[in-house]
Amino acid sequence: MGNIIVGQSGGPTAVINASVAGVYKRAKQAGVPKVYGMVYGIQGFLEGKVIDLDDYLSTGEGMELLKRTPAAFLGSCRFKLPSIQTGEELYENIFQMLEKYDIDAFFYIGGNDSMDTVKMLSDYAAQKGKRQRFIGVPKTIDNDLPITDHCPGYGSAAKYIATSLKEIIRDNAVYGDYRTAVLIVEIMGRHAGWLTAAAHLAKDASCEGVDAIYLPEKSFDLSLFLQKIRELTQKKRSVVIAVSEGVKTPEGRFVCELDGAGGEIDVFGHTQLSGCGAFLASYVQDRLGVKARAVELSTLQRAATHLASLTDIEEAVMAGEAAVSAALEGMSGVMVTLKRDSDMPYHCTTEVYDIHKIANIERKVPVEWIGKDGCSLRPEYEAYARPLILGELQPIYEGGTPKHLVRKEQ
Amino acid sequence: MGNIIVGQSGGPTAVINASVAGVYKRAKQAGVPKVYGMVYGIQGFLEGKVIDLDDYLSTGEGMELLKRTPAAFLGSCRFKLPSIQTGEELYENIFQMLEKYDIDAFFYIGGNDSMDTVKMLSDYAAQKGKRQRFIGVPKTIDNDLPITDHCPGYGSAAKYIATSLKEIIRDNAVYGDYRTAVLIVEIMGRHAGWLTAAAHLAKDASCEGVDAIYLPEKSFDLSLFLQKIRELTQKKRSVVIAVSEGVKTPEGRFVCELDGAGGEIDVFGHTQLSGCGAFLASYVQDRLGVKARAVELSTLQRAATHLASLTDIEEAVMAGEAAVSAALEGMSGVMVTLKRDSDMPYHCTTEVYDIHKIANIERKVPVEWIGKDGCSLRPEYEAYARPLILGELQPIYEGGTPKHLVRKEQ
Repeated sequence: MGNIIVGQSGGPTAVINASVAGVYKRAKQAGVPKVYGMVYGIQGFLEGKVIDLDDYLSTGEGMELLKRTPAAFLGSCRFKLPSIQTGEELYENIFQMLEKYDIDAFFYIGGNDSMDTVKMLSDYAAQKGKRQRFIGVPKTIDNDLPITDHCPGYGSAAKYIATSLKEIIRDNAVYGDYRTAVLIVEIMGRHAGWLTAAAHLAKDASCEGVDAIYLPEKSFDLSLFLQKIRELTQKKRSVVIAVSEGVKTPEGRFVCELDGAGGEIDVFGHTQLSGCGAFLASYVQDRLGVKARAVELSTLQRAATHLASLTDIEEAVMAGEAAVSAALEGMSGVMVTLKRDSDMPYHCTTEVYDIHKIANIERKVPVEWIGKDGCSLRPEYEAYARPLILGELQPIYEGGTPKHLVRKEQ
Repeated sequence: MGNIIVGQSGGPTAVINASVAGVYKRAKQAGVPKVYGMVYGIQGFLEGKVIDLDDYLSTGEGMELLKRTPAAFLGSCRFKLPSIQTGEELYENIFQMLEKYDIDAFFYIGGNDSMDTVKMLSDYAAQKGKRQRFIGVPKTIDNDLPITDHCPGYGSAAKYIATSLKEIIRDNAVYGDYRTAVLIVEIMGRHAGWLTAAAHLAKDASCEGVDAIYLPEKSFDLSLFLQKIRELTQKKRSVVIAVSEGVKTPEGRFVCELDGAGGEIDVFGHTQLSGCGAFLASYVQDRLGVKARAVELSTLQRAATHLASLTDIEEAVMAGEAAVSAALEGMSGVMVTLKRDSDMPYHCTTEVYDIHKIANIERKVPVEWIGKDGCSLRPEYEAYARPLILGELQPIYEGGTPKHLVRKEQ
């Protein structure tokens, strides 16, 4: 196989760079001459923003730092390809760029929308008889890709959420019987509740866990919510609630929109959500007369590489390696998936899957994993998620903060 | 010396429990028979909530876990003692409790308000000829106690802020030239800007740092702020601003109150602030037409023990030990202070200081450490703060999250 190129797309995760490391490692093992990186995904690539990864990763230190670097090392984009019928010129430009760098295989690390890009490019190549192969590498903190058991990036976000909640729960209970304190923790997740479900993992031998978890998989009834909080505050003084930013009323309205805080539409047509925690805290305070406040975990859920899960990092590397192996075997139009062989002991391998059956499909938390009360998780979730947050890769500290790998200016 | 008791008061820090460890360690070395802990500070103590710390700390594992446990292991309170004239009955109750447990020395780990409690109790003891000694151990993420070079708790909060900002800055820049993104990071600190100043520490060889830092030590002019953001967005696409929750307009109004979001008054008469980041982000978005959002670091600043500074933990232990040593020497009505002997190499020892000259005095960031532009920190701050965030104490992980020490139900 000739040269290859790898890109990153969509919102970053704590381990999206570990997949770049995996692509590079496997390609170099296989004797691929040049491993290029597209800077700012397909959007930067169209403008010729390309780097040679040897400049950064040929030393062991570069690889180790890359695995510990948050956000997208190569830069990312949110760029939706036009249909093949209407966008032929753009597609031709992309393939001209691929020819210019003599690229045989194209690897794109991303979530749902990015897999759509891989699908379109592989379809175009098939239609036009182009030789290049296109392989998707999954990443998303949202964990909402179908077929794959889970997505690289989810385990680290879940570990961050569980760890932060353990710390927050203790902080909230610090005044004991002397102060009622309701804390609403708002967690990311538009339609799928995987991230919010991770709040369940705060519960263990040294933590009582959160008191209720509200996922977007269940409709959110404001009066039932208020009743739950009332019951909780009658039993205990420190109440911590995890709520997804994406919860909706039975009428289908986002809770964050109820107080008039309207959303914004991004290029893929999704509403940008935030503020549901703040709304609910003020609602509880007004109606129940107890002190309530909100914490929004926000960006840190996907950026806190200092707390990444080693299992997640290793699987992200493995997914990158598997993508290169698939291209070496001549495949195209596929995404790498993770296949769990067993929970205890946890064991996971990779497969590949037809990207047409993956792109634009969202996988949600199975409703049968949600407790009968509608605001708890059943042991099936614990068995699924706990293995994904195990292990740590210690940051390399310099001057008191973790050191990262930085791209030179393009 | 007979038995002693230790309590925690006010908002917790990541290392407030390390000072309990220090008190316990030094007392046991000195042959103190019983080291009690008051549960929920002076408030719980008045109700007889007392534990024997041998039950938790007599094993090495207990001590190691305690140093890695967030929030206040003993529980905390916000309880203001009445004046001695009006509250004699209450003071007598406290001293009866001290007699009941045959306590010779009382250690209180806290910030400004808690040092007021130490002062009142030691004054009462002096007036009434009581034998008990009262020693304050400083802790506050706010770093606003006078005399002491810095406060245990600050280094860890600063390390968390610097590390999180490095991660957030990379995340915000992920779309490079393809998207202007202004991010306002709201950081705690009512009147003193120490925590917000820690944003400066994000800047290093692998991070460009934040673009501006607004401390409450300088008055905050909304139009100058907007002009600064405009200039920044003309030069670069990713702009990250750190702003203290406590910034005020030249007219003396909190910025977070400008959109009508009024504060709440706590028992010490402080306004509870939040929302200034969200207000400024929406202000920037409206006036400049660029995408702007806010992140509030909130509770995690004081609770993230998983990222505590080893220097800070060691000094918190040292402060606890020094408090016991002072009591053994017969002192009372003093607070332990940290004295910096040198920056490079950093070296710090403890002293004690008359608590009358400490309680209720707030120390702010020296204005000469703030840059001429009013929104940057000078090298003097770097030299002061960098040593405080150095070193790590790895959490003890179990099931993927850090293990904590838990008090049995009282």
